Amino acid sequence: MTIDWLTITPAKPDGRSRDAAVARQATLTKPPGALGRLETLAIDLAALQGTESPAVDRVQVTLFAGDHGVVAEGVSAFPQAVTAEMVKNFARGGAAICVAARELGAVLEVIDLGTATDTGPLHGVQRYGLGPGTANFTREPAMSEHQLARALAAGRHAAERARLQATQLFVGGEMGIGNTTAATALACALLDESPARLAGPGTGLDTHGVAHKAEVIERALDLHRPHLGTPVEMLRRLGGFEIAALTGSYIACAHVGLPVLVDGFISSVAALAAARLCPGARDWFLFAHASAEPGHRLVLDALEARPLLDLGMRLGEGSGAAVCVPLLRMACALHNDMATFTQAGVSEGRD
Amino acid sequence: MTIDWLTITPAKPDGRSRDAAVARQATLTKPPGALGRLETLAIDLAALQGTESPAVDRVQVTLFAGDHGVVAEGVSAFPQAVTAEMVKNFARGGAAICVAARELGAVLEVIDLGTATDTGPLHGVQRYGLGPGTANFTREPAMSEHQLARALAAGRHAAERARLQATQLFVGGEMGIGNTTAATALACALLDESPARLAGPGTGLDTHGVAHKAEVIERALDLHRPHLGTPVEMLRRLGGFEIAALTGSYIACAHVGLPVLVDGFISSVAALAAARLCPGARDWFLFAHASAEPGHRLVLDALEARPLLDLGMRLGEGSGAAVCVPLLRMACALHNDMATFTQAGVSEGRD
Repeated sequence: MTIDWLTITPAKPDGRSRDAAVARQATLTKPPGALGRLETLAIDLAALQGTESPAVDRVQVTLFAGDHGVVAEGVSAFPQAVTAEMVKNFARGGAAICVAARELGAVLEVIDLGTATDTGPLHGVQRYGLGPGTANFTREPAMSEHQLARALAAGRHAAERARLQATQLFVGGEMGIGNTTAATALACALLDESPARLAGPGTGLDTHGVAHKAEVIERALDLHRPHLGTPVEMLRRLGGFEIAALTGSYIACAHVGLPVLVDGFISSVAALAAARLCPGARDWFLFAHASAEPGHRLVLDALEARPLLDLGMRLGEGSGAAVCVPLLRMACALHNDMATFTQAGVSEGRD
Repeated sequence: MTIDWLTITPAKPDGRSRDAAVARQATLTKPPGALGRLETLAIDLAALQGTESPAVDRVQVTLFAGDHGVVAEGVSAFPQAVTAEMVKNFARGGAAICVAARELGAVLEVIDLGTATDTGPLHGVQRYGLGPGTANFTREPAMSEHQLARALAAGRHAAERARLQATQLFVGGEMGIGNTTAATALACALLDESPARLAGPGTGLDTHGVAHKAEVIERALDLHRPHLGTPVEMLRRLGGFEIAALTGSYIACAHVGLPVLVDGFISSVAALAAARLCPGARDWFLFAHASAEPGHRLVLDALEARPLLDLGMRLGEGSGAAVCVPLLRMACALHNDMATFTQAGVSEGRD
C-alpha cells in the first residue's frame, strides 16, 4: 500500500476569486474593515472555494477513533475502555459532536480505526480494524508501515466522500484515550521541542500526571530519535491511528480543493504533520479555536495560524470546529447578502 | 414623564436553576470543564431564564437610531446624512444587522428616535421624533429632560414587546453618526477617565482625527463637569437618543427578567450607564465581543465583563452580538441534548 500520494502538490487557492471578494467587501454598507475577521474569513473562503460568493451550508464532520498503546504507561485521566464506549455514544448520537453536528445540519461520519475493546458492528460506524489500538510507543513504533498507510488512506477516503457530496467545508474530529500524549510526542518531534514545554493535562491530569506524561514522552523520544528523520516516520512511530487519519484527510482535502476547518490541539498537530508531509496543504486550512491544552499555542505558531475562537474548550471530537461553523456561515451571509453603497444610496466616508 | 422606573431593583437570576444546570453539566459525557465557556454560558442562561434547559431560539434585535449634534465639531469619518441613509438601508434589509438577523431567524425592530435628515415614513421603522438629532454637547446638554425620558421609554417599550413575545434573548443595536464620540464622553464621565485614554477611531478616524475627537470631548466635559453628579445627568448631557434608549432597554430587560446580549463599545457604555442607574441590572447582561474600539476594554473591566468573541469587529448595529448568538444556541443544545455518563454507559474519569 503506497503513501506516495501524500506528497502530490495541491493547487493554490484561487487568486481571482480572492480579488473579487476583496473588491466586493469594499463596496458593502459598512466602514471598511468594520466586520473584522469576518471579512478576511469570507475572502479566504472565496479563494478556497473558487467563487466570489462562498458558502458553508454543506459541512461534513468525520470523526476518527482509535486506541493508544501508550495508555499502559498511565498517561490518561480516563480508562482506555472509554474510547469504545464513546464510539457507541457517537453511534447513538449522545456525544457533544453529535449534538453540534445536528445543530449545524452537518453530515457526521464515525470511523473506528481500531479500539482496544471491540464494539461489534454499530449502525453508522465504519470499522477499519487496524488493530486493538497502536503499540506502546515507549517500546516500539506506534504503527507498522501498513497500519500507517491504511490510517492515512482512511482519511483520504473521507475527503473523497466529502468531495463527491459537494461538501463546502471539511471538519475532522478525533477520539482516543491517550491521544494528547501521542499528539504531544509527535509535536515534540515535528517542532524539536521538549515534552516538558508541550505536555498538558489532556482530559484532566493533575500537575503530577502532566509531569509523568512528559517523562513518558521523553522516554519515547529517546527510543525513536535515531529514526525520526522524516515526518512520515515521526507520524508512524509516535502518532496514532486517528491522528494519521486526520493527517491523511487534511492532505486529501488540499488535493481535492476542499477547505478544512481544523479543531483543537490534536487536530492541529495532525495539520502540522500534513503541512510538513505535503508542502502547500497548509493553504487549505482554517483554524477554529485556541484549545485550553497549553501546547496548542506553539503548534499554531508553527502553522502561522490564528484561530477564531478562544473559549477554553479542550474536548476534541471536532467540537471546537463545529462551534465555529456558524461564524463562517455568518461571514458568508454578510459577504453575499449585504447591500452595496450604490444599491442602498448610502454615502461613503470622507478621505 | 417620569424616569423613576429606572431605579426599581430587578429580581436576581434563579439560583436553583443555576444549581440544577451545574449539576447537569457534571453528568454529561465529556471531561469536566472540557466545553470551557460554553458550559458557563449554558449555566448562566439557565439562571437567567429560570430553567434547567435554557434556549435562545426566539431572539429580538432592536436597533435604535439617532443623530448627534456634536458631529458639527468634525468628529466623524462619515457625513451625518448617513444615519438616515442607513435607517433606509435597515428598512430595506441591506445592512449587516439585517443579514445577521435573517441568518438567525431573529425579530428585527428598527426604531428611529430622531435623525437630522427626515426619512419620511418607512415600512417597518418606528419613529419617535425626538428631534433632528441631539444638541451639540460642547455647547449645551445633548438632551432635554423630556427627550431623555422619552428615549429611555423607547427602550423600555422594546423590552416589554420582547417579553410579550416570549423572547428568550434581547439584543440592542445602535446607529448614529458621531455616536462613538457621545459614548466616549459618557464613558469618561461614568469612569472618571480622560478622553485621551478612551477616544478611538470609531468608523475610521486617523490619528489626527482621534486627537481632535478627544479634545472635543474634553471641552464638553469641562462645560458640564459642575452638573455631572448623577448618572442620569451624565446620560442626558453627554449621551444620545439611541444610547439612552439602549440604556432604558437594558434596565427594562432586567426588570422583566430577560437576558441581554450586549454588543460592542457603544452598547457596553449603555450597559455601564444601566448598571449605575439600576443596581442589580448588571446580573442580566451577557457580553458578546471585544470591539476594536480601544476604549471598550476599560468599559468591560468596569462591568467585570469578559466577552465571548474577539474578532476585531467595530460596526455596531448589534452585529457583534448577532454573530455571537449561534454560540449561545450551541451552548444550550450541548447542555440540553448531550447524553449523560449513565445514559451512554460511559466510564467516568479516575479521581
